[in-house]
Amino acid sequence: MSVTLPSVRADARRRAESPWFQHTITAVIVANAVCLGLDTVPEIVQRYGTILVVLDRGVLVIFVVELVLRVFAYGRAFWRDPWSVFDFLVVAMALIPSTGGLSVLRALRILRVLRLVSALPSLRRVVGALLAAMPGMGSIAGLLALVQYVAAVMATKLFGHIMPEKFGSLGWSLFTLFQIMTGDGWSDIVLTVMRTQPLAWIFFVVYIMVSTFAVLNLFMAVVVASMESQISDEIGKDPEGAQREEERDTETLQAVQRLTDEVSALHTELAVLSRVVTGGRDRTGPPP
Amino acid sequence: MSVTLPSVRADARRRAESPWFQHTITAVIVANAVCLGLDTVPEIVQRYGTILVVLDRGVLVIFVVELVLRVFAYGRAFWRDPWSVFDFLVVAMALIPSTGGLSVLRALRILRVLRLVSALPSLRRVVGALLAAMPGMGSIAGLLALVQYVAAVMATKLFGHIMPEKFGSLGWSLFTLFQIMTGDGWSDIVLTVMRTQPLAWIFFVVYIMVSTFAVLNLFMAVVVASMESQISDEIGKDPEGAQREEERDTETLQAVQRLTDEVSALHTELAVLSRVVTGGRDRTGPPP
Amino acid sequence: MSVTLPSVRADARRRAESPWFQHTITAVIVANAVCLGLDTVPEIVQRYGTILVVLDRGVLVIFVVELVLRVFAYGRAFWRDPWSVFDFLVVAMALIPSTGGLSVLRALRILRVLRLVSALPSLRRVVGALLAAMPGMGSIAGLLALVQYVAAVMATKLFGHIMPEKFGSLGWSLFTLFQIMTGDGWSDIVLTVMRTQPLAWIFFVVYIMVSTFAVLNLFMAVVVASMESQISDEIGKDPEGAQREEERDTETLQAVQRLTDEVSALHTELAVLSRVVTGGRDRTGPPP
Amino acid sequence: MSVTLPSVRADARRRAESPWFQHTITAVIVANAVCLGLDTVPEIVQRYGTILVVLDRGVLVIFVVELVLRVFAYGRAFWRDPWSVFDFLVVAMALIPSTGGLSVLRALRILRVLRLVSALPSLRRVVGALLAAMPGMGSIAGLLALVQYVAAVMATKLFGHIMPEKFGSLGWSLFTLFQIMTGDGWSDIVLTVMRTQPLAWIFFVVYIMVSTFAVLNLFMAVVVASMESQISDEIGKDPEGAQREEERDTETLQAVQRLTDEVSALHTELAVLSRVVTGGRDRTGPPP
Repeated sequence: MSVTLPSVRADARRRAESPWFQHTITAVIVANAVCLGLDTVPEIVQRYGTILVVLDRGVLVIFVVELVLRVFAYGRAFWRDPWSVFDFLVVAMALIPSTGGLSVLRALRILRVLRLVSALPSLRRVVGALLAAMPGMGSIAGLLALVQYVAAVMATKLFGHIMPEKFGSLGWSLFTLFQIMTGDGWSDIVLTVMRTQPLAWIFFVVYIMVSTFAVLNLFMAVVVASMESQISDEIGKDPEGAQREEERDTETLQAVQRLTDEVSALHTELAVLSRVVTGGRDRTGPPP
Repeated sequence: MSVTLPSVRADARRRAESPWFQHTITAVIVANAVCLGLDTVPEIVQRYGTILVVLDRGVLVIFVVELVLRVFAYGRAFWRDPWSVFDFLVVAMALIPSTGGLSVLRALRILRVLRLVSALPSLRRVVGALLAAMPGMGSIAGLLALVQYVAAVMATKLFGHIMPEKFGSLGWSLFTLFQIMTGDGWSDIVLTVMRTQPLAWIFFVVYIMVSTFAVLNLFMAVVVASMESQISDEIGKDPEGAQREEERDTETLQAVQRLTDEVSALHTELAVLSRVVTGGRDRTGPPP
Repeated sequence: MSVTLPSVRADARRRAESPWFQHTITAVIVANAVCLGLDTVPEIVQRYGTILVVLDRGVLVIFVVELVLRVFAYGRAFWRDPWSVFDFLVVAMALIPSTGGLSVLRALRILRVLRLVSALPSLRRVVGALLAAMPGMGSIAGLLALVQYVAAVMATKLFGHIMPEKFGSLGWSLFTLFQIMTGDGWSDIVLTVMRTQPLAWIFFVVYIMVSTFAVLNLFMAVVVASMESQISDEIGKDPEGAQREEERDTETLQAVQRLTDEVSALHTELAVLSRVVTGGRDRTGPPP
Repeated sequence: MSVTLPSVRADARRRAESPWFQHTITAVIVANAVCLGLDTVPEIVQRYGTILVVLDRGVLVIFVVELVLRVFAYGRAFWRDPWSVFDFLVVAMALIPSTGGLSVLRALRILRVLRLVSALPSLRRVVGALLAAMPGMGSIAGLLALVQYVAAVMATKLFGHIMPEKFGSLGWSLFTLFQIMTGDGWSDIVLTVMRTQPLAWIFFVVYIMVSTFAVLNLFMAVVVASMESQISDEIGKDPEGAQREEERDTETLQAVQRLTDEVSALHTELAVLSRVVTGGRDRTGPPP
């Protein structure tokens, strides 16, 4: 057998899909997670810092090799799978030089651990289900965003001069309103504003009610979406009972059809008999 | 063709319902939202303030023209559509001179952005669904209001002299109880009251439990209402299976009916034969 | 007609159940609610205090008369209806002299306003539904109480000497744990304890998780209970479709039965014919 | 009858399962709970401390005897029942000498009261249902743990030097993030961090949204699991209606089968008649 490109690809694919390969990658991700965790302990960094850096580089090399293998094995199909693209982005991020203003990227290395989600089918399924619930939430999320924007502009206009550190700009108003929505220390802010504008409570109480109600409905959209499938599965269940009923119905129909055939045969026979009787009559009809 | 009023109206209606017209209005609303947002940034107001004012006036003119067109096009039907009335009120508010004590109205201009809800069908549907869930919540909301009122009167009577800044009047009691219900810093208030009335915790713990339970049930009424339709849709689904069953049942009934016709024909034929046989007999009966 | 006791009772019952009577009582309750609300405003009490006291006495007289009428009209049945007993207790409470240590009873007069719940059928239904959900919650509430008790004893033993003002006695521990369960400022307490016992977070994090989970399940028991009936109603719906199916099934059965009768008749006729033919044959059998 | 080991065991089992035995143990557990509660009151400990110690020892002896009896009665089956193992562990804990560093074990004695759960069937069922919902939560709990770990590593790296008392180590970051997730005073922490890193709000707002969403879904998994069975029970209901339909269907099938038999008999009879007629014809066929 000559070694052709397709056969090499198929071989690469087989390797990439082998349990051994996948278990190894999962183990490397977990090991990387532990290393990055140890990297937060100053004493360990001081004593074993070099080892951790070497391990991190090694993990990165393994990930790059793995991705190159998968890109080669799946070709364009690799880029169509969102999980693969996610793996690619997370690894690519680690290759950007993390010096100067980009030092925050060093902290983002831990996002590589999220590859565990794409590596473990059960986590993949959960995240997939969460993302699947997203589209149904679109309209309510849009409405919530609109409410936040309108409330933030109003709060900036109405209370910006009273509490500049809370409602001084659109950005601060959005942050403070998010804080009020989560219910963290909202009464202190509102009471401070009310010292200057005694009717300010109207705005805040309405805002709390509307935003809580909208968030509740956002959550309920997820619940309904996730229960919908569960319940429809439930209803679709009892396949035995439904099948039994179907079988009984089919049996009845077949019994009626068999009966029709029988009656039909009876009909033919009677016709024959009738012809015989009438024919005999006809023939014997004219009395001798 | 002469230009009659109805034909002009129909023309106006066609224009008002054209996608081009509606996309333009949506774009104007979004542009207005951005302007009103920029209006909160002091630097931009200082430098481009006049432009923002001109744009705001322009948007207002467009809205007034649009509303006049729609009022003309739909006549009385305009006032029967709650979304149209909402559009009218939001625009009318901007026409009230916003000087003196009414300066708060300037901040309310941002409510115009809520026209986006009536302009975008998907947001319209979500808000419609939320409002549709309202009637089912009526009784529970009434009960919650009653509980709040009773609790506020009791709190004012019992704790008004202990913490006048929290329970000094019915209004303050209502506000403080709302704060306690949201769980924001309730323990500080209760601990302060308990220093004078050690048994005050009974009132507050009962209030927290009852009001949380009532609010939970208020929310559940919404969940049940929104799930009800979803689930009944679910159950109503599998139209193919139901149709198949119905078809099979109808088929059986038709097969039995065809069979009955067949047997009936058999009956007739047998009767004829019988008459022939008996008749022949009768005729041949008297032996020659 | 002589005036007998039963006829007087029936008459009293008719009056007590008349819409006019019930609307009057509801109006009196609402008026009483307003009076008790006004009673919390010092200026109004100073100026119209005597009027409010007179009105309150008047309302009390009306309530007493109403209850006497209902007790007379319904006899023992009055005491069997929990709503009637509730009305009685709330009114009876107002008759206890509210002097000395019982001054708290003055504040409890507002509980009379809760008679609105028993007077308005829609509120009555909501409260009835809430109370009906209670038994299903019994076990979970018991479990939650057990968890609270165990946690309070442990907290008193473990942290009582560290923060005596929070965990000094079983009562204070229960209050503080309730506060931690509602999430109000729990981190400050836990951080203070952790300064002495660094591992205290284990106890509190486990407690927060277990109690939140138990409370969630307590709430879910209510949701499930309230949805159960809703959903079973839903499923029981589409009575038209079910009826149509039933009708079609019955029709098929009847068609088969009519067919059987027809075939039976055919059978009889054939038997007659057979006898005639065979008989004729027999008679004509022996050739002359 | 000789006293054999199996018969003694069966006797022990009968005793252990007798209501009298179980009620006694339940009473002892409740009495123990009260004693341990009284043990937290300093005055009572001072005056009746010896009595409480004696009672505690007595309870322990009863528990040990009970466990020995059950271990003897059930043999290996004892160790296979998780509730029995739980009972064993809770009692065994009390036998460990609680001196020195293990003084915390004295506080854990109260866990013995949790034996009430294994003693009361209704509590046992509730806890069993809660534990049964656990496996379905596994994946989401795993995802949540992963999110927490990744967020804690990032927070330590990014904010560890800004607020060492909150994000100084992985442990503190996990605790602070748990605090932020529960919404307790999160804004103070975030505002402090933002003074140094103005963009820190991105991390925290994303974290709050993702973790709240994940926790919501964790809870929903429980709801769906508990409702699933309830709803499937609901749907499985109306057994009368379903039975009636089944009976009607069976009746139809039987009617058709009886009809088929009838037609079959008709067929046979007609065949006989036919043969008679044709035979007669044949015989009479050749005209004389």
